Amino acid sequence: MKHKTFKHMDCPIAQSLEVVGEWWTPLILRNIVIVGHTRFDDIQESLEIAPTVLTRRLNHLVDSGLLERHRYSEHPPRFEYIATEAATDFKPVLKALAKWGKKWTSAAEHR
Amino acid sequence: MKHKTFKHMDCPIAQSLEVVGEWWTPLILRNIVIVGHTRFDDIQESLEIAPTVLTRRLNHLVDSGLLERHRYSEHPPRFEYIATEAATDFKPVLKALAKWGKKWTSAAEHR
Repeated sequence: MKHKTFKHMDCPIAQSLEVVGEWWTPLILRNIVIVGHTRFDDIQESLEIAPTVLTRRLNHLVDSGLLERHRYSEHPPRFEYIATEAATDFKPVLKALAKWGKKWTSAAEHR
Repeated sequence: MKHKTFKHMDCPIAQSLEVVGEWWTPLILRNIVIVGHTRFDDIQESLEIAPTVLTRRLNHLVDSGLLERHRYSEHPPRFEYIATEAATDFKPVLKALAKWGKKWTSAAEHR
């Protein structure tokens, strides 16, 4: 599915969402910048996300400057993804989402 | 398109995204809690969003307790959406997204 782009909008929230606003992307960033995962396989198993979707999301984050891709195995080819400063600086958004979720969703019942 | 749900995940970020993580939804909340829009038609024209998509997103936010729907015209039927405390309390997330966007996206070039 091709989303309508937000790129033409002169709004920093829209510009952020163009980079991180797709389904799964904030959780992928959570795994990388909070949990500390770097390897594709670890992220994929942890989230139980379809590998094709994870590949698309990671590619977009690499293209947008949030992640750097490194090959850590030649045979078989395996990749890890290292957070740039732009990704680690996304932590306040994740923390705000966590705070909101604890207060206003059923996550509150577990805490 | 039916997304895979995050409901089973014991993580407040995932629970938040289950409510607000779809494409368009944070921008709809921006229009309501920051810009101050309440009327369907104002939000629809401002965002240039497909009415069917806007209806789905607003219904999900009503069902999730972030918005209350009021009819303000009988003929033709017209609706407005009033933010609950759960929605106004989402402002810190929007502000964090704006701050990140100003620093790390092309929005920075305009500011």
